[in-house]
Amino acid sequence: MIDRKHLKEFIKIVGRENIYDDKAHMIAYSYDATRTRFEPDAVIFPRNEKDVSDILKYCNQNKIVITPRGAGSGFTGGALPANGGVVLAMEKHMNKILEIDTQNMVAVVQPAVINMDLQRAVEKLGLFYPPDPASEEYSTLGGNVSENAGGMRAAKYGLTKDYVMALRAVRANGDIIQAGKRTIKDVAGYNIAGILIASEGTLAVLTELTLKLIPKPKYKKTYMGVFPSVNSAMSAVFKSLSDGANPVAMEFLDKLVIKALIEKLNVNLPIDAGGVLVGDVDGNVPEEIEFQLNTLRESFLQNGAKEFMVAKDEKEAKELWFARRNASQSITIYGNKKLNEDISVPRSMLPEALDRIYAIGEKYGFKIPCFGHAGDGNIHVNVMIDKSQIDEGHKCIEEIFQLVVDMGGTLSGEHGIGTSKAPFMDIAFTKEELKLFKDIKRAFDPNGILNPAKMGL
Amino acid sequence: MIDRKHLKEFIKIVGRENIYDDKAHMIAYSYDATRTRFEPDAVIFPRNEKDVSDILKYCNQNKIVITPRGAGSGFTGGALPANGGVVLAMEKHMNKILEIDTQNMVAVVQPAVINMDLQRAVEKLGLFYPPDPASEEYSTLGGNVSENAGGMRAAKYGLTKDYVMALRAVRANGDIIQAGKRTIKDVAGYNIAGILIASEGTLAVLTELTLKLIPKPKYKKTYMGVFPSVNSAMSAVFKSLSDGANPVAMEFLDKLVIKALIEKLNVNLPIDAGGVLVGDVDGNVPEEIEFQLNTLRESFLQNGAKEFMVAKDEKEAKELWFARRNASQSITIYGNKKLNEDISVPRSMLPEALDRIYAIGEKYGFKIPCFGHAGDGNIHVNVMIDKSQIDEGHKCIEEIFQLVVDMGGTLSGEHGIGTSKAPFMDIAFTKEELKLFKDIKRAFDPNGILNPAKMGL
Repeated sequence: MIDRKHLKEFIKIVGRENIYDDKAHMIAYSYDATRTRFEPDAVIFPRNEKDVSDILKYCNQNKIVITPRGAGSGFTGGALPANGGVVLAMEKHMNKILEIDTQNMVAVVQPAVINMDLQRAVEKLGLFYPPDPASEEYSTLGGNVSENAGGMRAAKYGLTKDYVMALRAVRANGDIIQAGKRTIKDVAGYNIAGILIASEGTLAVLTELTLKLIPKPKYKKTYMGVFPSVNSAMSAVFKSLSDGANPVAMEFLDKLVIKALIEKLNVNLPIDAGGVLVGDVDGNVPEEIEFQLNTLRESFLQNGAKEFMVAKDEKEAKELWFARRNASQSITIYGNKKLNEDISVPRSMLPEALDRIYAIGEKYGFKIPCFGHAGDGNIHVNVMIDKSQIDEGHKCIEEIFQLVVDMGGTLSGEHGIGTSKAPFMDIAFTKEELKLFKDIKRAFDPNGILNPAKMGL
Repeated sequence: MIDRKHLKEFIKIVGRENIYDDKAHMIAYSYDATRTRFEPDAVIFPRNEKDVSDILKYCNQNKIVITPRGAGSGFTGGALPANGGVVLAMEKHMNKILEIDTQNMVAVVQPAVINMDLQRAVEKLGLFYPPDPASEEYSTLGGNVSENAGGMRAAKYGLTKDYVMALRAVRANGDIIQAGKRTIKDVAGYNIAGILIASEGTLAVLTELTLKLIPKPKYKKTYMGVFPSVNSAMSAVFKSLSDGANPVAMEFLDKLVIKALIEKLNVNLPIDAGGVLVGDVDGNVPEEIEFQLNTLRESFLQNGAKEFMVAKDEKEAKELWFARRNASQSITIYGNKKLNEDISVPRSMLPEALDRIYAIGEKYGFKIPCFGHAGDGNIHVNVMIDKSQIDEGHKCIEEIFQLVVDMGGTLSGEHGIGTSKAPFMDIAFTKEELKLFKDIKRAFDPNGILNPAKMGL
């Protein structure tokens, strides 16, 4: 429960109506998509940047910990108040698209704007905001920046970080910072935006984002390749890309996912398929689409594909995408609990990485259906267990992380570290690297009030 | 002169043959492209990362300042030993391309590899490293990363930062850090590479870079638009881009540059031209080239262009590019000294920014020929003065900087801050922002040994 003295001060800053401190709301704000729960002492809804600054200044002076929160849709606990304190909830007031500047092709938004709301708004103007995390219909752009969210289109269009031109943020001490400009190039001063992206709210609270937009490509088509084995599909990924293909997305389904889709959802895929790659290509002219499809077709067939399909229309495109879109819900046939990790390896390592992940699964007796963003090397690895097997599940995950790091990969391609991967940080980083993270954390936030207990800091 | 005791220690680390401390070499390593001079006490050539670590550890313990140096081709004094001490010259040993991984499309290089050497090596394999600073034939990739170098192709392909997937670096205390992986996505830990890019050697010494490569586009054509006024050319820049054009480059020459090119080099341009835009378009299919050229042509003509030319072959392309390539040397007709700044503004502000820069020039009685990377809003502003007018020249520059910042622009699009723009940092940043820079500097380098007196720190 929040101290009466502190509550009084917060009321002075934002008004009573912008503070929750009742039990029901503390429960409501205690969880995110990890389903782990930590109750805060209060939830505060800042109305603007000045409120954020005043709240942080007060909290910093009084060593009250703060957890910034967008939609709470993260998979690693980034928005969880792991040490209690104040949740700074941006959703109520700081949720406006402030400007869409078609001349410079940038959007200026507050942090709690929903990703898809921005996509829709700019597409009406013939523009395009590419980052499309699976949570795009509900996750916020502030959360996307804090985690450097990826998505299916990352294969061609890159990550959230590639679209952040500038941002405004408040440091732990209340200092308001502008980082970057509405210019393509800016090398004056340190790249503060660069370090705040993916910092999971541990260094500053984002208050405004200036995001790059691009012209919307005029043509798009959906393709699917069906492969006899996971290995041949994974080889086709990096070979087709180094052959010059540049698909918007290249998503992957493994044998176990295909089986689950057929069993559970009657999806029309060959039962003997070992792997599927599905995605879109786009371009300004139909000939670019043909070029992309031809490059993919040739490369897929050379790498053993049994079928290469191209959707004739929007309806067929939806059918091809149906399998990928329902992968996550289908695999529950393998266990009543899913330990979902999003490892990423250099693309050429994908065939070996998958082989070895399945072998680890066999050792533990777990099925590990895998799917995801093969085009950028990022695979969602789902260790399916019974609820009674949590400890062995975590051991299995730890082995997978060690394998991935040994292969030059990373603990997380797009979900972040938060609380859930924090225990594995010393697999991925040396003690010198962890020390540097701590030194940076201390430079931004000497009292450690910002989102503590995250990222192993 | 270097203390005998320190020299002995450095000899132990790298051997006598890898240290210069004679007067002639101190002079040779005292300058860069700014022509300002500061002599170091010694120049050390580390053979490998361990040498760098050992040297830094020793210097940190003994508070000896260090300036890392690539080719010394920078325009803002980044490689100048402004406070003496040791120059850490990477050119002699740490200059190898370690690997070109065609499967994952990455190159791993040591910091002193020349930009163009990498470009040539990867193009032989059908791959492409886009960042092309004007210094590409002699500047090093380590220097490019330290300054976040741009170039002509930035309009379509982005900056050096967009190609840094991972790096290795040594902190002031000797700690060796790996940041990033050979994966497209990586959100584990803070984005250390992000903050080291453009940090001008003030936070760490780069020892290895993993750079992203892309497939080389198959087709390319060169275009030129001739405009009646600077204003119409500048309007065509942002309007053509928001119309969907995505040229590789969109370079700009103003009326004064055109006049100088005609007078000094007999370049075949209309004497009454007020502005020229020249650049390339590229693509995988000829129809994409046509799409780009049509979009540019239509948009240029709508914005008042008098001519739109497309080079029929390589020879004509070279002729169109000749004007831009010789812009810098032609403008010496306006003064025997050039104060060369590389401001950047939001593209839609270009027409107004140029008008107001010329007005400032008129007030001081200086000609200010401008050219550069209009496609990304980055203009090289050249205040042409007589050598006797240095003080007024600097006042004029200060007014230009203030104007640019007021218009939402930046002191430097690609050259950096170094020593030469350090006095202007408080025009561009608030005291809170400057304090954050200092806090970050202190976190990485508590004793302040790394490239001191740069960036206003």
